[in-house]
Amino acid sequence: MAGYRGPAEPLRYQIVEQRIVALIESGALAPGTKAPSLRETAQSTGVSLTTATQAYAILEQRGVLEARPRSGYFVRRQPDNLPSAGTPQSEEPAVHVVRRGELIRRAMDVMGREGILPLGLAQVSPELLPDKDMGRVLASVLRRQPTRSANYGQVAGCPELRSQIARRLALAGVSAAPEELITTCGATEALSMALRVLTHPGDTVLIAAPTYHFFLQMIEVLGLRVVEIPSHPATGISLHELTAALDRFSIAACVLSPTWNNPDGSLMAADDKRALVEILTARNVPLIEDDVYGDITFQGARPPACKAFDRHGVVTLVSSFSKALAPGYRTGYLLPGQGLGGRMLELKAMTTFASVTPVELAVAEYLEKGLYERHLLRLNRALREQVDAMRAAVAQYFPPGTRATHPRGGFMLWVELPEDAATGTTLYHRAAAEGIGISPGMLFGMTDRFERFVRLNCGLVMNEEVRRSIKRLGQLARG
Amino acid sequence: MAGYRGPAEPLRYQIVEQRIVALIESGALAPGTKAPSLRETAQSTGVSLTTATQAYAILEQRGVLEARPRSGYFVRRQPDNLPSAGTPQSEEPAVHVVRRGELIRRAMDVMGREGILPLGLAQVSPELLPDKDMGRVLASVLRRQPTRSANYGQVAGCPELRSQIARRLALAGVSAAPEELITTCGATEALSMALRVLTHPGDTVLIAAPTYHFFLQMIEVLGLRVVEIPSHPATGISLHELTAALDRFSIAACVLSPTWNNPDGSLMAADDKRALVEILTARNVPLIEDDVYGDITFQGARPPACKAFDRHGVVTLVSSFSKALAPGYRTGYLLPGQGLGGRMLELKAMTTFASVTPVELAVAEYLEKGLYERHLLRLNRALREQVDAMRAAVAQYFPPGTRATHPRGGFMLWVELPEDAATGTTLYHRAAAEGIGISPGMLFGMTDRFERFVRLNCGLVMNEEVRRSIKRLGQLARG
Repeated sequence: MAGYRGPAEPLRYQIVEQRIVALIESGALAPGTKAPSLRETAQSTGVSLTTATQAYAILEQRGVLEARPRSGYFVRRQPDNLPSAGTPQSEEPAVHVVRRGELIRRAMDVMGREGILPLGLAQVSPELLPDKDMGRVLASVLRRQPTRSANYGQVAGCPELRSQIARRLALAGVSAAPEELITTCGATEALSMALRVLTHPGDTVLIAAPTYHFFLQMIEVLGLRVVEIPSHPATGISLHELTAALDRFSIAACVLSPTWNNPDGSLMAADDKRALVEILTARNVPLIEDDVYGDITFQGARPPACKAFDRHGVVTLVSSFSKALAPGYRTGYLLPGQGLGGRMLELKAMTTFASVTPVELAVAEYLEKGLYERHLLRLNRALREQVDAMRAAVAQYFPPGTRATHPRGGFMLWVELPEDAATGTTLYHRAAAEGIGISPGMLFGMTDRFERFVRLNCGLVMNEEVRRSIKRLGQLARG
Repeated sequence: MAGYRGPAEPLRYQIVEQRIVALIESGALAPGTKAPSLRETAQSTGVSLTTATQAYAILEQRGVLEARPRSGYFVRRQPDNLPSAGTPQSEEPAVHVVRRGELIRRAMDVMGREGILPLGLAQVSPELLPDKDMGRVLASVLRRQPTRSANYGQVAGCPELRSQIARRLALAGVSAAPEELITTCGATEALSMALRVLTHPGDTVLIAAPTYHFFLQMIEVLGLRVVEIPSHPATGISLHELTAALDRFSIAACVLSPTWNNPDGSLMAADDKRALVEILTARNVPLIEDDVYGDITFQGARPPACKAFDRHGVVTLVSSFSKALAPGYRTGYLLPGQGLGGRMLELKAMTTFASVTPVELAVAEYLEKGLYERHLLRLNRALREQVDAMRAAVAQYFPPGTRATHPRGGFMLWVELPEDAATGTTLYHRAAAEGIGISPGMLFGMTDRFERFVRLNCGLVMNEEVRRSIKRLGQLARG
């Protein structure tokens, strides 16, 4: 650890955490009652308002408190007794040559097989998606605009769709002109384009630990190296450790999912997002902000994107409609950082040339009619319930000492097995042999620090088969 | 030219050409009568059968002879008096760093503008495409398979479509298992994937001169360099010059369109394709074979692809349904060379992840029902007539001394202006100012050798507007 100082801030959160837990345990705060306001707590514990806010987020993430829009924080009525998954151990940051591809490919191959329950994938049950409505809109576009549908659209994408995306980005606090946007074949093409424009083989990019394994695969294919910054399930990456890494390494770009990071479900607070953008702007390090889970926010308005705080164009935002609407339509998009639009547009022309015209017209119409907004309300309600049901099932069936995140968006549960249980990798192998696909924690980082973790997909409707599989996973996880 | 010997072979073609032209001019061969067989001509002129075959191809290309399937060659009844565009001047081959992007981008920008007649693009009139039928098939897929349509397909592409493509490839003499094929977002993604797997930035690739300007753009974006091999409008690239270039330069891959090269409409003879594959196999240099125009063959069966002669897997074939069926559906594919399938599949996963499911299902069904085959018959008849009409209009309106190709497939006319006319670039600028888009020859090569050329799109239905524009181009081309 020579020359490197770990973060000091968590000690200050803990003052608040301990105070609130003591109030509950003493009975002074009964289940269902309102917790002291952030301002009161900050004053009574002597911490800043920011620290109190972060402490409450952690308490919410642990299932102790519950946020109600415009009403404040309440003590949860039915805590599921599943402790929060912790911050990953801090490790000496280092530049890693990524060689995770083979491991990830083998695991993904197992999880994608027919007859394997897809608890290891990142997708929702088909019955939660509006496939018939979406198909009807597309069929109607084909009937009304047959010639336009069959022919090349603009390289940057169909103008109607770019307008609708610009309107939706406003909900994330992002002001973008439709002309600035480029549609892509899923967020995959957007991320690949952003990385290809911003980096050269051999460059180092900064990522979160844990991070989506797909980022690791893409980084490996592009011949890049990585530096990992720990992500806390409640608050996302540590800005302190990020700053230290930027001081120490030459970073070509950061690739982060500040809103509902996959797999740990973390959300960076708005103030942290603003600070992140300021730090990166000051050092002229670009951020590729993956926002694919932004729309999947369980309660209240979706959080602002980092791009909302980006006054100097350091952020390139990538996203898609693959998670919440129609994975098979491959409709993604890209909002390039300052001065990058021309090169990204040229790269799109040289990668896929243009997007599928009828599909873009149909998604634009689905959005324009307000159908997407209505669908999201239903979807987010279902996903929230499924996350709660998954947590309850894990609390019931997994070995004592198991911990899990409490995501308030996205649909991944990040589960930490206790020391005396099987490792994540062992559990993954045992489960695969019985037709249950889960993602071992090792896929989500460059070192062994996630050996005790597994990621569970809460996108599946919680039916008897899923419940039985969780029960079986709990048995397989023992010893 | 130190150390480099130009090709000697054209002199031998000329013996045959002169003999046949003399027979016609003397009246011994009347218009509409059968020409001497290849064997007779080979014997009477003392050349090999291969040389006689190539000479007849040149005579056909010049509009002197006409091939009739299973009947041999006939003297054309109505020669349009438009002499053949010649072989490009042989130049000292050299490695070029590609910096054509800006020039091409500016020209494409002009040609894509609204209100500009798209004689400069490579696309057919929308009324020649079966947009309504194709749309009905897609709508029917959405109705019958709503859930599958909305969800992720396989990374390699929808199995039904890969089966249909494998069946079609058999028509090109290519035997491929559906499992070997990877579908892509147009031939663009296929070509980009093939180049990214086979080359590294700084490598040199071999291309034809002239070549499709899009290849030059992609090569520039990927940081590659090129060596150009002259292409003759009748016979394609010179194998002699190709061999000399392979001896002299380290070539990472060849990118060629051996069937109806864009812009010169050349077709390599089957024997030349076989020889090309043998030369490349012996030297272990991969070929990326662009076959996007293979289906657009005016008479008889489509020619075999180079891939048909590829016993050792040196050829990666790329193609699409964008030219003949539905540009806006972005349905392309890739048949990887030996040992490349895994890396190409991984690169697809990291570039677009998967293709648009409902579109792939619809194209598969369109093919499976035999609708594509029926459509091609109509389309190729129309395109053949349009090429003839365009040649006739150019012969009528362009300055005396203008020469043009006589393509028997594809839909590009490659026109060479006489010395005393405007250059291709001047004509392009003058035409653009009057709302007529054409492609200047300079876009199709790395040196100035195509300064006197323009490429005209015969994909447009020959209506009064197109005819008037050709007449106006002829006026603008003077002096």
